[in-house]
Amino acid sequence: MTLLAIGTIAFDDLESPSGKREHLFGGSATYFSLSASNFCPVQLVAVVGEDFGPKEESVFAGRPIDLEGVSRRKGKCFHWSGSYGEDLNEARTLMTDLNVFADFDPKLPEHYRSAPYLFLANIDPRLQLEVLAGMASRPKWVALDTMNYWIEGARGSLEKALSEIDILLINEAEAKSLAKEANAIKAAKIISSMGPRAIVIKRGEYGALLSNGGACFPFPAIPTETVIDPTGAGDTFAGGFLGFLASQGNMEEKTLRKGMLVGTVMASFAIESFGTERLAAVTKPEIEERLSMLANIIGISGT
Amino acid sequence: MTLLAIGTIAFDDLESPSGKREHLFGGSATYFSLSASNFCPVQLVAVVGEDFGPKEESVFAGRPIDLEGVSRRKGKCFHWSGSYGEDLNEARTLMTDLNVFADFDPKLPEHYRSAPYLFLANIDPRLQLEVLAGMASRPKWVALDTMNYWIEGARGSLEKALSEIDILLINEAEAKSLAKEANAIKAAKIISSMGPRAIVIKRGEYGALLSNGGACFPFPAIPTETVIDPTGAGDTFAGGFLGFLASQGNMEEKTLRKGMLVGTVMASFAIESFGTERLAAVTKPEIEERLSMLANIIGISGT
Repeated sequence: MTLLAIGTIAFDDLESPSGKREHLFGGSATYFSLSASNFCPVQLVAVVGEDFGPKEESVFAGRPIDLEGVSRRKGKCFHWSGSYGEDLNEARTLMTDLNVFADFDPKLPEHYRSAPYLFLANIDPRLQLEVLAGMASRPKWVALDTMNYWIEGARGSLEKALSEIDILLINEAEAKSLAKEANAIKAAKIISSMGPRAIVIKRGEYGALLSNGGACFPFPAIPTETVIDPTGAGDTFAGGFLGFLASQGNMEEKTLRKGMLVGTVMASFAIESFGTERLAAVTKPEIEERLSMLANIIGISGT
Repeated sequence: MTLLAIGTIAFDDLESPSGKREHLFGGSATYFSLSASNFCPVQLVAVVGEDFGPKEESVFAGRPIDLEGVSRRKGKCFHWSGSYGEDLNEARTLMTDLNVFADFDPKLPEHYRSAPYLFLANIDPRLQLEVLAGMASRPKWVALDTMNYWIEGARGSLEKALSEIDILLINEAEAKSLAKEANAIKAAKIISSMGPRAIVIKRGEYGALLSNGGACFPFPAIPTETVIDPTGAGDTFAGGFLGFLASQGNMEEKTLRKGMLVGTVMASFAIESFGTERLAAVTKPEIEERLSMLANIIGISGT
C-alpha cells in the first residue's frame, strides 16, 4: 500500500490578505506527503539544497515518510514567491527560482521501483514520464497533477503522460484549457478520452468534481471563514485523496468518492495557517471529526 | 399553503453559445410560478401589456396559479435583452425596456392579502416593502431576491426590506457586494445580522450555499453538459425551494435542506431549453427521478 510521490520541496514567500510571510517551508512533495502519510506509507522523490536542514527534516519525522529518494545538492531549494488577492482563489506568481531543481534528474532508490501506487506532482511532464519509465513494474495506479505552464509549453509530452496514467488531478481553468472546452463536464470527458479513467477537477472554494468513467460527482469545500493561506491546498487534497485510495487498495467508485471527502477535509486544514504548520499538526481524531462534520453538512447519513 | 409571489412577466431576447432567440416568454414571476406550482398553489402579482395574449396565458393554464393579481395595461410587457459568453455564468444586459412595468403599482386582490407565504422577486425594494405593507397579516415567512442595481442604487430601502424578511436569495457576487465582504461565509453572517434568518447564496454552475442561523450548507449544481439558456435559473430555483417550503409548512433545517435539493433540480430543468419551454413541460415523475439522481451524486442515502 506504499505510495511513491515525486514533486518539489521548496521555500515560499507569500502575501495574502492575512499577512506576509517569508521562507515558509513548502513545495508539492511536502504538502502531499504530510497529508498522505496520515493514511499510508509514502516514499518521496525530490531534490533539496543546503538550506534543507534538520529543522525541515524534522517536519517529516515520526511519520511513515521514506526520504531516501530525496537528493541533496549544492545550492538552494526551489523558491517560489506569490501573492493572493481578496478572493484567495488564485495565486499570482511573483518569482520562481528553480535553484537545485533546475538540474533535477530523479533517481529512484531500488526499493522504490516496485511501489504499487505512484503520484507525479506538478512538474515537467518529461520528468513525470521518466519516473514512470523507471519503475520496475507498472504500478496498480498512477496519478498526475499538471498546470498551464506545461499545457501550453509541453503539450506533446503531457499528452503522452496522460495516455499512461489512471488519475488526473487538475484545476478547473487548466482542465478547460487542456480540453479546449468551456464546460467542465464536457472537458472531463475529453480529458478522459486522452487516457485517465478518473479526473479530479479542483475548484478552490467551490470544492472539486470527480469524473469517473463518464459519471460526475461534485463535492463542496468545507465552508470556512478563515482561509489564511491556500498555498498547497491542491497537493494536500491530492495527498488525502490518493493516500486514502492507497490505503483501500482499490479504485471502486465508492472508494474514490470517500477519497474525495478525505481530500476535502485535509485541504481544509492546510488553508488554516501559513505554510504547513496546521497540516503538520493535524491528528487522526481531528481528521475523523471533520469527516463527520463534512458528511453532516453534505447530508450523507454514513460515510 | 398558498405562496404569493410578485415579480415580472416579460419577453426576453437573448444570445448564448447555443444560439439566438427573440421574444421568449419569461420574467421572474413566470419562471418562479411555473416552478413553485409543482409543489403548492401560487398567487401571482405582476403587470402585463397588450402583447400578453392567450398564448402567454396558456403557459400558466392547468396549474394552481392564480392570475387575478396580474394587471393588464396599455403598452408592452417588460422587455429584456441579454447575452451570455462561453462560461454562461453571467448575463450581459444589452437593453432593458420597462414598458408597462415603469408605472407598476402592485395591487393585491383581497383574497391574496392573507397568503401565509410571500416571495418578493427582484424588483425595486420600495415596491417589495409596499407589497409587504399591503398584507392583511404578517405572512409566516417572507422571502426576497435582489440584485446589484438595488444594492448600489437603493441601499436604504433594501436594508429596510431586509430587516423585515426571513429568507434572502441572492447571487454570490451580490451577497459579497451587499455585505462588503469577500468571504461568502462571512458575507452570509453579515447579511443575517441585517434581518433574514436564512440566506441562499446562488453560485451558478457551482450550486448554492444555504446559511441558516449561523450554520452553512453547500449544495452542488447537477453536473450537466447541456446548458442552453441560464435565464431564469435563479427564479426557478427560488420557485422549487420556496414552493417546497410552503408545501411543508415549516422552516426547520431539514426542510430547508430538502428544499435546496428541490430548487437545484428545478433549475437543472430550466437551463435545458431557451425560455420556459423545458420547465413548463416538466412532470412530477421527472422531478422525482432527478431528485433521486441528485441524492445519488451527492451521496445522500435517502432524501
